[in-house]
Amino acid sequence: MTARPIEACPIEDRLAIEDLLVAYAHAVDRLANIDEICACFTADAVFDLSGIGLANVVGHAGIRGFFTPVFANMAHHAHYLSNFAITAHDGETASVRAYVTGMGMGRDGRGVTVHGRYYFDVRRTAQGWKATRYAMDFLMPLTGTLDNAR
Amino acid sequence: MTARPIEACPIEDRLAIEDLLVAYAHAVDRLANIDEICACFTADAVFDLSGIGLANVVGHAGIRGFFTPVFANMAHHAHYLSNFAITAHDGETASVRAYVTGMGMGRDGRGVTVHGRYYFDVRRTAQGWKATRYAMDFLMPLTGTLDNAR
Amino acid sequence: MTARPIEACPIEDRLAIEDLLVAYAHAVDRLANIDEICACFTADAVFDLSGIGLANVVGHAGIRGFFTPVFANMAHHAHYLSNFAITAHDGETASVRAYVTGMGMGRDGRGVTVHGRYYFDVRRTAQGWKATRYAMDFLMPLTGTLDNAR
Repeated sequence: MTARPIEACPIEDRLAIEDLLVAYAHAVDRLANIDEICACFTADAVFDLSGIGLANVVGHAGIRGFFTPVFANMAHHAHYLSNFAITAHDGETASVRAYVTGMGMGRDGRGVTVHGRYYFDVRRTAQGWKATRYAMDFLMPLTGTLDNAR
Repeated sequence: MTARPIEACPIEDRLAIEDLLVAYAHAVDRLANIDEICACFTADAVFDLSGIGLANVVGHAGIRGFFTPVFANMAHHAHYLSNFAITAHDGETASVRAYVTGMGMGRDGRGVTVHGRYYFDVRRTAQGWKATRYAMDFLMPLTGTLDNAR
Repeated sequence: MTARPIEACPIEDRLAIEDLLVAYAHAVDRLANIDEICACFTADAVFDLSGIGLANVVGHAGIRGFFTPVFANMAHHAHYLSNFAITAHDGETASVRAYVTGMGMGRDGRGVTVHGRYYFDVRRTAQGWKATRYAMDFLMPLTGTLDNAR
Protein backbone atom coordinates (compact mmCIF):
# COMPACT_ATOMS: atom_id res chain seq x y z
CA MET A 1 0.00 0.00 0.00
CA THR A 2 3.04 2.30 -0.30
CA ALA A 3 2.37 5.33 -2.43
CA ARG A 4 4.37 5.23 -5.65
CA PRO A 5 3.40 7.24 -8.70
CA ILE A 6 0.82 5.29 -10.63
CA GLU A 7 2.34 6.56 -13.84
CA ALA A 8 4.88 3.82 -13.25
CA CYS A 9 2.16 1.30 -14.13
CA PRO A 10 1.79 0.52 -17.84
CA ILE A 11 -1.76 0.80 -19.12
CA GLU A 12 -1.81 -2.87 -20.08
CA ASP A 13 -1.00 -3.86 -16.50
CA ARG A 14 -3.47 -1.44 -15.00
CA LEU A 15 -6.31 -2.76 -17.11
CA ALA A 16 -5.32 -6.39 -16.56
CA ILE A 17 -5.31 -5.80 -12.80
CA GLU A 18 -8.76 -4.19 -13.01
CA ASP A 19 -9.88 -7.22 -15.01
CA LEU A 20 -8.67 -9.50 -12.22
CA LEU A 21 -10.86 -7.72 -9.67
CA VAL A 22 -13.83 -7.76 -12.06
CA ALA A 23 -13.31 -11.49 -12.60
CA TYR A 24 -13.18 -12.04 -8.84
CA ALA A 25 -16.42 -10.12 -8.32
CA HIS A 26 -18.14 -11.98 -11.13
CA ALA A 27 -17.09 -15.35 -9.73
CA VAL A 28 -18.43 -14.33 -6.32
CA ASP A 29 -21.68 -13.11 -7.88
CA ARG A 30 -22.26 -16.19 -10.05
CA LEU A 31 -22.42 -18.31 -6.88
CA ALA A 32 -21.64 -21.27 -9.13
CA ASN A 33 -18.01 -22.36 -8.88
CA ILE A 34 -15.53 -21.63 -6.11
CA ASP A 35 -12.69 -22.71 -8.42
CA GLU A 36 -13.33 -19.50 -10.39
CA ILE A 37 -12.63 -17.55 -7.21
CA CYS A 38 -9.50 -19.53 -6.34
CA ALA A 39 -8.20 -18.93 -9.87
CA CYS A 40 -7.94 -15.21 -9.03
CA PHE A 41 -5.48 -15.92 -6.20
CA THR A 42 -1.98 -17.38 -5.88
CA ALA A 43 -1.72 -20.65 -3.96
CA ASP A 44 -0.27 -18.80 -0.95
CA ALA A 45 -2.66 -15.85 -1.03
CA VAL A 46 -3.82 -14.17 2.17
CA PHE A 47 -7.58 -13.57 2.07
CA ASP A 48 -8.30 -11.16 4.89
CA LEU A 49 -11.80 -9.83 5.53
CA SER A 50 -11.09 -9.14 9.20
CA GLY A 51 -11.50 -5.44 8.38
CA ILE A 52 -15.24 -6.05 8.01
CA GLY A 53 -15.57 -8.70 10.73
CA LEU A 54 -15.27 -11.78 8.53
CA ALA A 55 -12.62 -14.40 7.82
CA ASN A 56 -8.86 -14.17 7.62
CA VAL A 57 -7.77 -17.28 5.73
CA VAL A 58 -4.80 -18.42 3.68
CA GLY A 59 -4.49 -20.23 0.36
CA HIS A 60 -6.99 -21.90 -1.91
CA ALA A 61 -8.11 -24.31 0.82
CA GLY A 62 -8.81 -21.37 3.13
CA ILE A 63 -10.66 -19.46 0.41
CA ARG A 64 -12.69 -22.56 -0.41
CA GLY A 65 -13.51 -23.00 3.26
CA PHE A 66 -14.72 -19.40 3.46
CA PHE A 67 -16.93 -19.54 0.37
CA THR A 68 -18.46 -22.98 0.90
CA PRO A 69 -21.02 -21.77 3.48
CA VAL A 70 -21.41 -18.44 1.68
CA PHE A 71 -22.40 -20.22 -1.53
CA ALA A 72 -24.73 -22.50 0.47
CA ASN A 73 -26.43 -19.58 2.24
CA MET A 74 -26.70 -16.87 -0.42
CA ALA A 75 -29.39 -16.65 -3.08
CA HIS A 76 -28.08 -13.50 -4.79
CA HIS A 77 -24.87 -11.51 -4.92
CA ALA A 78 -23.84 -8.30 -6.68
CA HIS A 79 -20.45 -6.65 -6.21
CA TYR A 80 -20.08 -3.36 -8.06
CA LEU A 81 -16.49 -2.13 -8.47
CA SER A 82 -15.34 1.41 -9.20
CA ASN A 83 -12.76 4.08 -8.28
CA PHE A 84 -9.80 1.89 -9.22
CA ALA A 85 -6.44 3.31 -8.12
CA ILE A 86 -3.08 1.64 -8.59
CA THR A 87 -1.23 2.53 -5.38
CA ALA A 88 2.04 0.67 -6.05
CA HIS A 89 3.71 -1.02 -9.03
CA ASP A 90 7.18 -2.43 -9.58
CA GLY A 91 6.65 -4.42 -12.76
CA GLU A 92 6.15 -7.82 -11.12
CA THR A 93 3.90 -6.80 -8.22
CA ALA A 94 1.33 -4.08 -7.69
CA SER A 95 -1.27 -2.84 -5.24
CA VAL A 96 -4.72 -1.62 -6.21
CA ARG A 97 -7.53 -0.02 -4.27
CA ALA A 98 -11.11 -0.11 -5.53
CA TYR A 99 -14.47 0.89 -4.16
CA VAL A 100 -17.11 -1.79 -3.82
CA THR A 101 -20.83 -1.83 -3.25
CA GLY A 102 -21.46 -5.42 -2.25
CA MET A 103 -25.01 -6.67 -2.02
CA GLY A 104 -26.24 -10.05 -0.88
CA MET A 105 -29.56 -11.73 -0.29
CA GLY A 106 -29.61 -14.93 1.71
CA ARG A 107 -31.80 -17.92 1.02
CA ASP A 108 -33.37 -16.97 4.35
CA GLY A 109 -34.45 -13.63 2.86
CA ARG A 110 -32.05 -11.54 4.92
CA GLY A 111 -30.04 -9.00 2.95
CA VAL A 112 -26.79 -7.11 3.34
CA THR A 113 -25.20 -4.13 1.62
CA VAL A 114 -21.55 -3.28 2.16
CA HIS A 115 -20.07 0.04 1.02
CA GLY A 116 -16.33 -0.25 1.28
CA ARG A 117 -12.92 -0.49 -0.28
CA TYR A 118 -11.01 -3.43 -1.67
CA TYR A 119 -7.24 -3.59 -1.32
CA PHE A 120 -5.52 -6.15 -3.53
CA ASP A 121 -1.83 -6.92 -3.72
CA VAL A 122 -1.18 -8.70 -7.01
CA ARG A 123 1.68 -10.54 -8.68
CA ARG A 124 2.41 -11.23 -12.33
CA THR A 125 2.41 -14.98 -12.97
CA ALA A 126 2.63 -17.21 -16.02
CA GLN A 127 -1.18 -17.25 -15.93
CA GLY A 128 -1.53 -13.49 -15.69
CA TRP A 129 -1.97 -11.26 -12.65
CA LYS A 130 -3.08 -13.07 -9.48
CA ALA A 131 -3.89 -11.72 -6.04
CA THR A 132 -1.43 -12.45 -3.23
CA ARG A 133 -3.40 -10.53 -0.62
CA TYR A 134 -6.95 -9.26 -0.40
CA ALA A 135 -8.39 -7.05 2.33
CA MET A 136 -11.24 -4.60 2.67
CA ASP A 137 -12.67 -1.97 4.96
CA PHE A 138 -15.93 -0.06 5.30
CA LEU A 139 -16.65 3.38 3.90
CA MET A 140 -20.20 3.50 5.28
CA PRO A 141 -21.78 1.60 8.19
CA LEU A 142 -23.04 -1.85 7.26
CA THR A 143 -26.68 -2.21 6.22
CA GLY A 144 -28.26 -5.57 7.03
CA THR A 145 -26.39 -8.60 8.30
CA LEU A 146 -23.23 -10.49 7.38
CA ASP A 147 -24.50 -13.59 9.23
CA ASN A 148 -24.89 -15.48 5.96
CA ALA A 149 -21.17 -14.98 5.25
CA ARG A 150 -20.00 -16.43 8.56
CA MET B 1 -20.83 -14.59 -25.31
CA THR B 2 -18.14 -17.19 -26.06
CA ALA B 3 -15.14 -16.90 -23.77
CA ARG B 4 -12.05 -15.80 -25.66
CA PRO B 5 -9.06 -14.20 -23.98
CA ILE B 6 -9.75 -10.51 -23.59
CA GLU B 7 -6.07 -9.82 -24.27
CA ALA B 8 -7.11 -10.24 -27.89
CA CYS B 9 -8.95 -6.92 -27.61
CA PRO B 10 -6.83 -3.81 -28.28
CA ILE B 11 -7.11 -1.17 -25.57
CA GLU B 12 -8.50 1.34 -28.08
CA ASP B 13 -11.35 -1.03 -28.93
CA ARG B 14 -12.02 -1.91 -25.34
CA LEU B 15 -12.35 1.72 -24.31
CA ALA B 16 -14.41 2.62 -27.38
CA ILE B 17 -16.82 -0.21 -26.57
CA GLU B 18 -17.10 0.99 -22.97
CA ASP B 19 -17.79 4.47 -24.35
CA LEU B 20 -20.64 3.06 -26.43
CA LEU B 21 -22.34 1.64 -23.34
CA VAL B 22 -21.77 4.88 -21.43
CA ALA B 23 -23.28 6.84 -24.33
CA TYR B 24 -26.29 4.52 -24.36
CA ALA B 25 -26.83 4.96 -20.61
CA HIS B 26 -26.49 8.72 -20.88
CA ALA B 27 -29.00 8.89 -23.72
CA VAL B 28 -31.43 6.80 -21.65
CA ASP B 29 -30.86 9.02 -18.63
CA ARG B 30 -31.25 12.33 -20.46
CA LEU B 31 -34.83 11.35 -21.37
CA ALA B 32 -34.54 13.92 -24.15
CA ASN B 33 -33.96 12.33 -27.55
CA ILE B 34 -34.61 8.75 -28.60
CA ASP B 35 -32.42 9.29 -31.68
CA GLU B 36 -29.43 9.37 -29.34
CA ILE B 37 -30.37 5.87 -28.20
CA CYS B 38 -30.91 4.57 -31.73
CA ALA B 39 -27.49 5.95 -32.71
CA CYS B 40 -25.91 3.38 -30.37
CA PHE B 41 -27.42 0.48 -32.34
CA THR B 42 -27.14 -0.90 -35.86
CA ALA B 43 -30.27 -0.70 -37.98
CA ASP B 44 -30.86 -4.45 -37.53
CA ALA B 45 -30.06 -4.57 -33.81
CA VAL B 46 -31.88 -6.93 -31.46
CA PHE B 47 -32.95 -5.13 -28.30
CA ASP B 48 -33.92 -7.83 -25.86
CA LEU B 49 -34.99 -7.03 -22.31
CA SER B 50 -37.02 -10.24 -21.97
CA GLY B 51 -34.50 -11.30 -19.32
CA ILE B 52 -36.00 -8.72 -16.97
CA GLY B 53 -39.59 -9.05 -18.17
CA LEU B 54 -39.61 -6.19 -20.66
CA ALA B 55 -39.55 -5.85 -24.43
CA ASN B 56 -37.82 -7.87 -27.10
CA VAL B 57 -37.79 -5.63 -30.16
CA VAL B 58 -35.78 -5.29 -33.38
CA GLY B 59 -34.26 -2.33 -35.17
CA HIS B 60 -34.51 1.40 -34.67
CA ALA B 61 -38.30 1.37 -35.08
CA GLY B 62 -38.59 -1.27 -32.37
CA ILE B 63 -36.25 0.61 -30.06
CA ARG B 64 -38.18 3.81 -30.67
CA GLY B 65 -41.42 2.01 -29.93
CA PHE B 66 -40.01 0.73 -26.65
CA PHE B 67 -38.68 4.08 -25.44
CA THR B 68 -41.61 6.28 -26.51
CA PRO B 69 -43.80 5.33 -23.51
CA VAL B 70 -40.76 5.10 -21.23
CA PHE B 71 -39.79 8.68 -22.03
CA ALA B 72 -43.42 9.74 -21.57
CA ASN B 73 -43.74 8.02 -18.18
CA MET B 74 -40.38 8.61 -16.49
CA ALA B 75 -39.36 11.75 -14.66
CA HIS B 76 -35.81 10.61 -13.75
CA HIS B 77 -33.37 7.96 -14.87
CA ALA B 78 -29.87 6.98 -13.71
CA HIS B 79 -27.97 4.00 -15.10
CA TYR B 80 -24.63 3.39 -13.42
CA LEU B 81 -22.24 1.11 -15.33
CA SER B 82 -19.27 -0.79 -13.94
CA ASN B 83 -17.43 -4.13 -14.01
CA PHE B 84 -16.84 -4.03 -17.76
CA ALA B 85 -15.56 -7.31 -19.21
CA ILE B 86 -14.85 -7.98 -22.87
CA THR B 87 -15.97 -11.58 -23.30
CA ALA B 88 -15.26 -11.99 -27.04
CA HIS B 89 -13.39 -10.05 -29.72
CA ASP B 90 -12.43 -10.87 -33.30
CA GLY B 91 -11.45 -7.43 -34.57
CA GLU B 92 -14.76 -6.57 -36.24
CA THR B 93 -17.17 -7.79 -33.57
CA ALA B 94 -17.01 -8.13 -29.82
CA SER B 95 -19.11 -8.97 -26.78
CA VAL B 96 -19.04 -7.08 -23.52
CA ARG B 97 -20.65 -7.65 -20.15
CA ALA B 98 -21.16 -4.81 -17.69
CA TYR B 99 -22.89 -4.41 -14.37
CA VAL B 100 -25.68 -1.86 -14.13
CA THR B 101 -27.55 -0.20 -11.31
CA GLY B 102 -30.53 1.26 -13.09
CA MET B 103 -32.80 3.66 -11.23
CA GLY B 104 -35.99 5.25 -12.40
CA MET B 105 -38.67 7.51 -10.97
CA GLY B 106 -41.96 7.79 -12.81
CA ARG B 107 -43.98 10.95 -13.22
CA ASP B 108 -46.49 9.07 -11.04
CA GLY B 109 -43.92 8.99 -8.22
CA ARG B 110 -43.32 5.25 -8.40
CA GLY B 111 -39.70 4.20 -8.45
CA VAL B 112 -37.65 1.23 -9.59
CA THR B 113 -34.10 0.04 -9.01
CA VAL B 114 -32.60 -2.74 -11.11
CA HIS B 115 -29.33 -4.43 -10.17
CA GLY B 116 -28.24 -6.49 -13.12
CA ARG B 117 -25.91 -7.18 -15.99
CA TYR B 118 -25.82 -5.80 -19.50
CA TYR B 119 -24.70 -8.02 -22.38
CA PHE B 120 -23.87 -6.18 -25.59
CA ASP B 121 -22.74 -7.66 -28.88
CA VAL B 122 -21.07 -4.91 -30.89
CA ARG B 123 -19.78 -4.42 -34.43
CA ARG B 124 -17.24 -2.01 -35.85
CA THR B 125 -18.88 0.29 -38.38
CA ALA B 126 -17.83 3.36 -40.35
CA GLN B 127 -19.42 5.37 -37.53
CA GLY B 128 -17.59 3.52 -34.76
CA TRP B 129 -18.73 0.60 -32.63
CA LYS B 130 -22.48 -0.03 -32.62
CA ALA B 131 -24.56 -2.58 -30.76
CA THR B 132 -26.06 -5.45 -32.73
CA ARG B 133 -27.64 -7.11 -29.71
CA TYR B 134 -28.46 -5.96 -26.20
CA ALA B 135 -29.78 -8.12 -23.38
CA MET B 136 -29.74 -8.03 -19.61
CA ASP B 137 -30.47 -10.11 -16.55
CA PHE B 138 -30.90 -9.52 -12.83
CA LEU B 139 -28.22 -9.90 -10.19
CA MET B 140 -30.55 -8.96 -7.32
CA PRO B 141 -34.34 -9.11 -7.05
CA LEU B 142 -36.10 -6.07 -8.48
CA THR B 143 -36.95 -3.20 -6.12
CA GLY B 144 -40.05 -1.19 -7.06
CA THR B 145 -41.96 -1.58 -10.30
CA LEU B 146 -41.14 -1.74 -14.00
CA ASP B 147 -44.73 -0.75 -14.88
CA ASN B 148 -43.55 2.62 -16.22
CA ALA B 149 -41.32 0.84 -18.74
CA ARG B 150 -44.09 -1.33 -20.17
CA MET C 1 -18.61 21.08 -22.19
CA THR C 2 -18.49 21.42 -25.99
CA ALA C 3 -18.83 18.10 -27.76
CA ARG C 4 -15.64 17.13 -29.55
CA PRO C 5 -14.84 13.57 -30.54
CA ILE C 6 -13.30 11.82 -27.56
CA GLU C 7 -11.02 9.95 -29.93
CA ALA C 8 -8.99 13.16 -29.84
CA CYS C 9 -8.05 12.32 -26.27
CA PRO C 10 -4.99 10.06 -25.89
CA ILE C 11 -5.58 7.07 -23.62
CA GLU C 12 -2.88 8.26 -21.21
CA ASP C 13 -4.69 11.57 -20.74
CA ARG C 14 -8.07 9.94 -20.41
CA LEU C 15 -6.89 7.61 -17.68
CA ALA C 16 -4.96 10.36 -15.89
CA ILE C 17 -8.07 12.54 -15.86
CA GLU C 18 -10.13 9.65 -14.47
CA ASP C 19 -7.43 9.22 -11.82
CA LEU C 20 -7.80 12.88 -10.86
CA LEU C 21 -11.51 12.43 -10.18
CA VAL C 22 -10.86 9.21 -8.25
CA ALA C 23 -8.22 11.01 -6.17
CA TYR C 24 -10.68 13.83 -5.46
CA ALA C 25 -13.38 11.38 -4.34
CA HIS C 26 -10.93 9.49 -2.16
CA ALA C 27 -9.73 12.69 -0.49
CA VAL C 28 -13.35 13.66 0.18
CA ASP C 29 -14.10 10.20 1.56
CA ARG C 30 -11.05 9.99 3.81
CA LEU C 31 -12.31 13.04 5.73
CA ALA C 32 -8.72 13.48 6.88
CA ASN C 33 -6.91 16.24 5.03
CA ILE C 34 -8.42 19.09 3.04
CA ASP C 35 -5.01 19.71 1.42
CA GLU C 36 -5.54 16.46 -0.50
CA ILE C 37 -8.69 17.96 -1.97
CA CYS C 38 -7.06 21.29 -2.82
CA ALA C 39 -4.25 19.40 -4.57
CA CYS C 40 -6.78 18.25 -7.17
CA PHE C 41 -7.56 21.84 -8.18
CA THR C 42 -5.66 24.76 -9.70
CA ALA C 43 -5.21 27.81 -7.47
CA ASP C 44 -7.89 29.67 -9.44
CA ALA C 45 -10.36 26.79 -9.70
CA VAL C 46 -14.11 27.39 -9.63
CA PHE C 47 -15.81 24.92 -7.30
CA ASP C 48 -19.49 25.15 -8.07
CA LEU C 49 -22.04 22.94 -6.34
CA SER C 50 -24.88 25.41 -6.90
CA GLY C 51 -26.43 22.79 -9.20
CA ILE C 52 -27.29 20.74 -6.10
CA GLY C 53 -27.98 23.67 -3.78
CA LEU C 54 -24.56 23.93 -2.17
CA ALA C 55 -21.59 26.27 -2.41
CA ASN C 56 -20.11 28.14 -5.34
CA VAL C 57 -16.61 29.09 -4.24
CA VAL C 58 -13.30 29.97 -5.88
CA GLY C 59 -9.73 28.87 -5.26
CA HIS C 60 -8.08 26.81 -2.55
CA ALA C 61 -9.27 29.17 0.19
CA GLY C 62 -12.85 28.82 -1.01
CA ILE C 63 -12.57 25.05 -1.26
CA ARG C 64 -11.07 24.90 2.22
CA GLY C 65 -13.88 27.06 3.53
CA PHE C 66 -16.44 24.72 2.01
CA PHE C 67 -14.93 21.52 3.36
CA THR C 68 -14.05 22.72 6.87
CA PRO C 69 -17.61 22.38 8.22
CA VAL C 70 -18.24 19.30 6.04
CA PHE C 71 -15.26 17.52 7.60
CA ALA C 72 -16.41 18.66 11.06
CA ASN C 73 -19.96 17.40 10.54
CA MET C 74 -19.56 14.15 8.60
CA ALA C 75 -18.73 10.79 10.12
CA HIS C 76 -18.67 8.82 6.84
CA HIS C 77 -18.41 9.55 3.15
CA ALA C 78 -18.45 7.37 0.03
CA HIS C 79 -18.39 8.75 -3.51
CA TYR C 80 -18.65 6.10 -6.21
CA LEU C 81 -17.62 7.25 -9.70
CA SER C 82 -18.56 5.64 -13.01
CA ASN C 83 -19.69 6.36 -16.59
CA PHE C 84 -16.66 8.52 -17.39
CA ALA C 85 -16.95 10.43 -20.65
CA ILE C 86 -14.38 12.84 -22.05
CA THR C 87 -16.54 15.54 -23.63
CA ALA C 88 -13.77 17.87 -24.83
CA HIS C 89 -9.99 17.70 -25.26
CA ASP C 90 -7.48 19.99 -26.91
CA GLY C 91 -4.23 18.60 -25.53
CA GLU C 92 -3.80 21.09 -22.68
CA THR C 93 -7.37 21.23 -21.39
CA ALA C 94 -10.24 18.77 -21.30
CA SER C 95 -13.74 18.30 -19.95
CA VAL C 96 -15.03 15.11 -18.38
CA ARG C 97 -18.43 14.00 -17.18
CA ALA C 98 -18.83 11.21 -14.66
CA TYR C 99 -21.69 9.71 -12.72
CA VAL C 100 -21.50 9.79 -8.96
CA THR C 101 -23.34 8.08 -6.15
CA GLY C 102 -22.37 10.16 -3.15
CA MET C 103 -23.26 8.94 0.31
CA GLY C 104 -22.73 10.68 3.61
CA MET C 105 -23.54 10.04 7.25
CA GLY C 106 -23.31 12.94 9.66
CA ARG C 107 -22.01 12.73 13.20
CA ASP C 108 -25.62 13.56 14.09
CA GLY C 109 -26.74 10.31 12.44
CA ARG C 110 -28.49 11.96 9.53
CA GLY C 111 -27.63 10.55 6.13
CA VAL C 112 -27.71 11.68 2.52
CA THR C 113 -27.42 9.96 -0.85
CA VAL C 114 -26.87 11.95 -4.03
CA HIS C 115 -27.26 10.38 -7.47
CA GLY C 116 -25.84 12.81 -9.98
CA ARG C 117 -23.23 13.82 -12.49
CA TYR C 118 -19.86 15.46 -12.05
CA TYR C 119 -18.57 17.89 -14.66
CA PHE C 120 -14.87 18.70 -14.43
CA ASP C 121 -12.87 21.04 -16.63
CA VAL C 122 -9.21 20.12 -16.28
CA ARG C 123 -5.85 21.55 -17.32
CA ARG C 124 -2.47 19.91 -17.80
CA THR C 125 0.03 21.36 -15.33
CA ALA C 126 3.61 20.58 -14.34
CA GLN C 127 2.08 18.53 -11.50
CA GLY C 128 -0.27 16.61 -13.78
CA TRP C 129 -3.92 17.25 -14.60
CA LYS C 130 -5.73 19.61 -12.22
CA ALA C 131 -9.34 20.76 -12.14
CA THR C 132 -10.09 24.34 -13.13
CA ARG C 133 -13.85 23.98 -12.70
CA TYR C 134 -16.07 21.49 -10.94
CA ALA C 135 -19.86 21.38 -11.05
CA MET C 136 -22.55 18.77 -10.61
CA ASP C 137 -26.23 18.15 -11.07
CA PHE C 138 -28.78 15.58 -9.95
CA LEU C 139 -29.89 12.53 -11.89
CA MET C 140 -32.35 11.38 -9.23
CA PRO C 141 -34.10 13.34 -6.46
CA LEU C 142 -32.02 13.74 -3.32
CA THR C 143 -32.46 11.18 -0.53
CA GLY C 144 -31.83 12.51 2.98
CA THR C 145 -30.43 15.91 3.80
CA LEU C 146 -27.50 18.05 2.66
CA ASP C 147 -27.68 20.09 5.88
CA ASN C 148 -24.35 18.67 7.07
CA ALA C 149 -22.66 20.04 3.94
CA ARG C 150 -23.91 23.60 4.42
